[in-house]
Amino acid sequence: MKQYIALDEWSIVEETFDPGNNQVSESLFSIGNGHMGQRANFEEAYSGRSLQGSYMAGVYYPDKTRVGWWKNGYPEYFAKVLNATNWIGLDLRFGEEQLDLARCTVKEFRRELNMRSGYLQRTFVTELPGGRQVRVEATRFVSIVRPEVGAIRYAVTPLNFSGQLQLSLYLDGDVKNEDANYDEKFWDETTRENTAQGALLTVRTRKLDFHVCSAMAYDILQRGQKVSVPADLTSRDKYVAHTLHLPVEQGQTTIAYKYVANVTSRDHAADDLQTVSRRVLAAAQAQGFESLLAEQAQAWAQKWQESDIVIEGDVAAQQAIRFCIFQLNQTYTGQDERLNIGPKGFTGEKYGGSTYWDTEAYCLPFYLSTAEQHIPRNLLLYRYKHLEKARENARKLGFTKGALYPMVTMNGEECHNEWEITFEEIHRNGAIAHAIYDYVEYTGDAAYLAEYGLEVLVEISRFWEERVHFIAAKGYVMLGVTGPNEYENNVNNNWYTNRMAAWTLEYTLEVLDRVRTTDPGRCRDLERKLRLQESEIARWRDIMARMYYPYDAERQVFLQQDGYLDKELIPAGDLDPKHRPLNQHWSWDRILRSCFLKQADVLQGLYFLGDRYDLATKKRNFDFYEPMTVHESSLSPCVHSILACELGYREKAYELYLRTSRLDLDSYNHDTQDGLHITSMGGTWMSVVKGFGGLRVRHGRLVLNPLLPDHWRSFSFKVMFRGARLRVSVGKGRLNVVNETDTGFELTVCDHDYRVAGKETLTIPLS
Amino acid sequence: MKQYIALDEWSIVEETFDPGNNQVSESLFSIGNGHMGQRANFEEAYSGRSLQGSYMAGVYYPDKTRVGWWKNGYPEYFAKVLNATNWIGLDLRFGEEQLDLARCTVKEFRRELNMRSGYLQRTFVTELPGGRQVRVEATRFVSIVRPEVGAIRYAVTPLNFSGQLQLSLYLDGDVKNEDANYDEKFWDETTRENTAQGALLTVRTRKLDFHVCSAMAYDILQRGQKVSVPADLTSRDKYVAHTLHLPVEQGQTTIAYKYVANVTSRDHAADDLQTVSRRVLAAAQAQGFESLLAEQAQAWAQKWQESDIVIEGDVAAQQAIRFCIFQLNQTYTGQDERLNIGPKGFTGEKYGGSTYWDTEAYCLPFYLSTAEQHIPRNLLLYRYKHLEKARENARKLGFTKGALYPMVTMNGEECHNEWEITFEEIHRNGAIAHAIYDYVEYTGDAAYLAEYGLEVLVEISRFWEERVHFIAAKGYVMLGVTGPNEYENNVNNNWYTNRMAAWTLEYTLEVLDRVRTTDPGRCRDLERKLRLQESEIARWRDIMARMYYPYDAERQVFLQQDGYLDKELIPAGDLDPKHRPLNQHWSWDRILRSCFLKQADVLQGLYFLGDRYDLATKKRNFDFYEPMTVHESSLSPCVHSILACELGYREKAYELYLRTSRLDLDSYNHDTQDGLHITSMGGTWMSVVKGFGGLRVRHGRLVLNPLLPDHWRSFSFKVMFRGARLRVSVGKGRLNVVNETDTGFELTVCDHDYRVAGKETLTIPLS
Repeated sequence: MKQYIALDEWSIVEETFDPGNNQVSESLFSIGNGHMGQRANFEEAYSGRSLQGSYMAGVYYPDKTRVGWWKNGYPEYFAKVLNATNWIGLDLRFGEEQLDLARCTVKEFRRELNMRSGYLQRTFVTELPGGRQVRVEATRFVSIVRPEVGAIRYAVTPLNFSGQLQLSLYLDGDVKNEDANYDEKFWDETTRENTAQGALLTVRTRKLDFHVCSAMAYDILQRGQKVSVPADLTSRDKYVAHTLHLPVEQGQTTIAYKYVANVTSRDHAADDLQTVSRRVLAAAQAQGFESLLAEQAQAWAQKWQESDIVIEGDVAAQQAIRFCIFQLNQTYTGQDERLNIGPKGFTGEKYGGSTYWDTEAYCLPFYLSTAEQHIPRNLLLYRYKHLEKARENARKLGFTKGALYPMVTMNGEECHNEWEITFEEIHRNGAIAHAIYDYVEYTGDAAYLAEYGLEVLVEISRFWEERVHFIAAKGYVMLGVTGPNEYENNVNNNWYTNRMAAWTLEYTLEVLDRVRTTDPGRCRDLERKLRLQESEIARWRDIMARMYYPYDAERQVFLQQDGYLDKELIPAGDLDPKHRPLNQHWSWDRILRSCFLKQADVLQGLYFLGDRYDLATKKRNFDFYEPMTVHESSLSPCVHSILACELGYREKAYELYLRTSRLDLDSYNHDTQDGLHITSMGGTWMSVVKGFGGLRVRHGRLVLNPLLPDHWRSFSFKVMFRGARLRVSVGKGRLNVVNETDTGFELTVCDHDYRVAGKETLTIPLS
Repeated sequence: MKQYIALDEWSIVEETFDPGNNQVSESLFSIGNGHMGQRANFEEAYSGRSLQGSYMAGVYYPDKTRVGWWKNGYPEYFAKVLNATNWIGLDLRFGEEQLDLARCTVKEFRRELNMRSGYLQRTFVTELPGGRQVRVEATRFVSIVRPEVGAIRYAVTPLNFSGQLQLSLYLDGDVKNEDANYDEKFWDETTRENTAQGALLTVRTRKLDFHVCSAMAYDILQRGQKVSVPADLTSRDKYVAHTLHLPVEQGQTTIAYKYVANVTSRDHAADDLQTVSRRVLAAAQAQGFESLLAEQAQAWAQKWQESDIVIEGDVAAQQAIRFCIFQLNQTYTGQDERLNIGPKGFTGEKYGGSTYWDTEAYCLPFYLSTAEQHIPRNLLLYRYKHLEKARENARKLGFTKGALYPMVTMNGEECHNEWEITFEEIHRNGAIAHAIYDYVEYTGDAAYLAEYGLEVLVEISRFWEERVHFIAAKGYVMLGVTGPNEYENNVNNNWYTNRMAAWTLEYTLEVLDRVRTTDPGRCRDLERKLRLQESEIARWRDIMARMYYPYDAERQVFLQQDGYLDKELIPAGDLDPKHRPLNQHWSWDRILRSCFLKQADVLQGLYFLGDRYDLATKKRNFDFYEPMTVHESSLSPCVHSILACELGYREKAYELYLRTSRLDLDSYNHDTQDGLHITSMGGTWMSVVKGFGGLRVRHGRLVLNPLLPDHWRSFSFKVMFRGARLRVSVGKGRLNVVNETDTGFELTVCDHDYRVAGKETLTIPLS
């Protein structure tokens, strides 16, 4: 754990420069706008350790699979969101000396990610080897109003000298993914323009033919006046630069404004990219940096209006939750249904920026509650559009019908290549089915079911049908799976997977009945298209009725899987702290045969299907599993925290909340340098709103069951619900619900029902 | 399956040239002598597809591990026997035209591996593009008398022209392993000499500092006379060549004799390599090719005298078994206890030439019966010398005591990197313990136990002790293992592993008692050195008594593992033949959750511990498992065949024998191009001698229970036993045992005891 971030309610702040923390900071201070993401690399040269990262959403590369030992069924490639043209680059030289913080003395340093207004600012004073002292203030953002625009204000002040500044502004497309499997480059240049008017560079991926065009323009300000300076033009393969020679005076600030438009063939015809980029760039430059920044601040204020959480009395918790909300909003805006949410978003290369079940299980609730309905809907459509590929995936693995969604994907094809995960972590199909349920329950958008949802549900149900088989001794069993708890591999009858499979069948039949009633024509067409047979439905009913669930009658708990009780059951608290985290200290087989859980599958199931189990059941299972859970998945503590709230385990809930919320800010797992745990941030949001807020939706009513941690004076959160937007505040002994809109809604608080009218404020005393 | 090898009792013969078969033939016609191995690559240039392979025993390279996803505990490297200097190379040009069978018309072609005398011969007539026709006869061998010597006789006859032959003879050290993980080269040059007197090249590995020095000399014969021709010398990094310009006449044969000495720093001081190689080379050249070849033929005649198997009435079976014996003798001579037997020997790069449990389980019996006692003893010492590394390996995986031998190794360190195998296929420890038992039973060399065996047994027992744990419901259980049947991974309570573990404990205690009696001083020293405690021994007894064995009371069979009966049990015969072999058609998860076995672990256990189970038990288990076994391990059919013999399943035994014996000759598994299945050849030998011959050793007596397959007129085999060498012949209704030595021995045939005196011949009628 590394704690060097200063506590602040609205900003992430680093107040000294420690090169050892630099890669962690590059992740933490990342900026993004859904269209592109940029790690907090320095604009100027830096020869120290750094992971340069500029990413364009949805621009990926099929990197040839690397394995030790090939298994039948592995995919040919892993799709990776690519490190793309470095558009932030500047180079500063005074005489022969280059400004490079790895080679200069850093006298003052401050880096701030301003979350309220959505920009990154870095100020520093440095002394070059020859004694020249310079102050720099660098501010940049990627616009959430104009997603293709990035802008930088780079202000330089000589402190103890006057002289010449040689300033280069460049675009560099000769970049490489650090995680390339075979150390290959993925980009070729297609066009390059470099004139006094500006520079432009188009590169294309060597496979799949994605084109990215970056255009750059700049203004120089001295003594508050725009100055016109002739530029030396440098041009080589995948690189364009303008170099300016500027007289600078001691104490006088020179400001370079750099404007960039990054446009891609995903959004425009490849032939139009140059024209579009020039147009977008010209509009941005005409608007000017300061005005663009004001526009940005205003847009972020609106985002916060929709999604802020306020925690009083605990700055660390406040900063952490805002960081999570900020990063989620930076990563996915929901405007493009072809996109999804990678576990690291645009903040690093790990996991390739691809889609995991994280989206459905941990991110969907955030977007359901804080964004317009079409945004979570787009997350669902993403999977709907991949249904054909999921069918192909099932065929590839030997199934005669049904669909298996991939473990990891970019375009619907499986990318992952660990047999115990790729082929066996099939519970993802259950989460994708459950997301449809979640969406429809929350929004009431039943039309989605007829149009899209039912087809996905039928195909997932068919997969489960073929994946189980019946044995007299147990009923329907499912062999050879890996649950969400990846610290068990290739097990039989994982309770969670069996349970979610049976639940899928049940929900599919419920939806089928519903659509048969609400939209009989569409339903008939669909049944014909899918060749749905009554015999299948009968078999689903039989599986629902006779599914086998491992259970311990003595403890009355559901079992992680067959044979779990053959393990030595030891509380994680008895482990030598030197052995934690286990995944850094134990060999893999030792982890597998131990009782310790990366996350507890049974609890995940009790969370998803919370309506179907009583508190006593939840308590028995929580009390059994939580002590053996080591939470080495970033996705683990949030669900445990939510259940702890439900069970009234106030202190445990708070402890688990802290663990999830400051995971990156305090680099708990020593891996923040690889990128932020973006999808787990959705879980953190859940642990406040669904945990401490106790928010659920039941039969079209919003349900709240708040629990205020002892460490907080109060907390409040924003949620949207069926056209209304409300602010829920929980203080000691009282709950306030402010309806900020004109739309009324149905509310249940601690088992009492209310109707909240438009603009109404409801205050409810809490015991 | 590819069948193009002509049937012949003593030779492997290919009578036409099909480039599509060339890589398979390069494996099949490999030559070796324990010190080096050489694939049957052409001496002259060949631009078609080829896997050039020259290997020096024990010269290996730690190639950086390649994985898709790293697991804690993986080794840093995989040790690979290296492709070393190409010493066979020649280049022939007539005018501008190069002799290259990929570019010439092949008019006649014959390749023969003469197993009786131990050489490879290739004759062909070819027409070069310009119309010149040439006959070539190329003969080569690596000497089993002078292990560092390789010799080639290359005879060229112009058939329709006279002119100039430009002949280059070279050594090329710029070679690469095709299976290099990162496409790196592993060799650097250290010395190079190239004078009129000859050429010499020393290369060293980039890691571990192995030096290999190759020296070359040659003689040219025309019209039966040695001719002296000045050579053009070519010399560049890792390459030396002599180029001769020879007038050749139509119908007249020019013979080039090429002599090479390959010496390594494993056998000589690195500084002496040049001197040694020159000396070895000079002696070989002085002797002359024809005389060296005669010496070779004589030495091979002696080998056959010790190990031949004669099968009458079935040429395919005869050829196959001789091929197995020949290749085993080519691979391992037992003179160097630092060496072992890689699954592919020196015939390819796959499996890196490293040591697997194959040696103990499938190869040891061959060397016990056909070689001097010190040779199988050396195979055991190999593991004894790795004991310290096996202890370190256990520590690395978190065990506080005991030893875990590696799955794959060169120098005792683990090389493998698949968690389900590396960490979980721990049954290898049982096979290593059992090999000690096997060796001592066969040879009666009880002194080995006190000196080496007991220490290994204690450390393996300690590993088992720590690897099991007790649960009230079952007894001692062992979780998370993979048995020999690699079509099940990460299972609980694999019957075979549990059984071999308990057997190890029992045998260790038996040996301990024995050594306490026979060598009390040594035993005390050892107990002190190992800090052996009575409490440990008590725990071993408890584990032996309460080990849990999965069992099906209904069918009265031992179970492959916990949960095996939850599978759908289907005979392999019901599979669509299009799905076979499963490992080429089914995704890995489907294989894992199916009932189908790569090899049947329970049957392996019943074979190893055959004395402890009655025929009825063996029959029940064979009848249950054999139908579900797909024999996709090359090591599977031999053990099944042996049990089938024991059970009197004559036709089944024969079918399984054919499958094991012609695996490579008929390229059953479509993978012979990667190299031969050398260790499985030991299993083939076992299926004749232990299967059809029914050979066992019990209480110091040789036991025979012969079974003559209906397809054979008779068969006979040679075995050595406690100083005697005998020839056992089995014909219809009679068994002949000829004692070829003066040493008598005790024999049991079909439950009757005999004493066979020196030089005696015993004829026993069989029912």
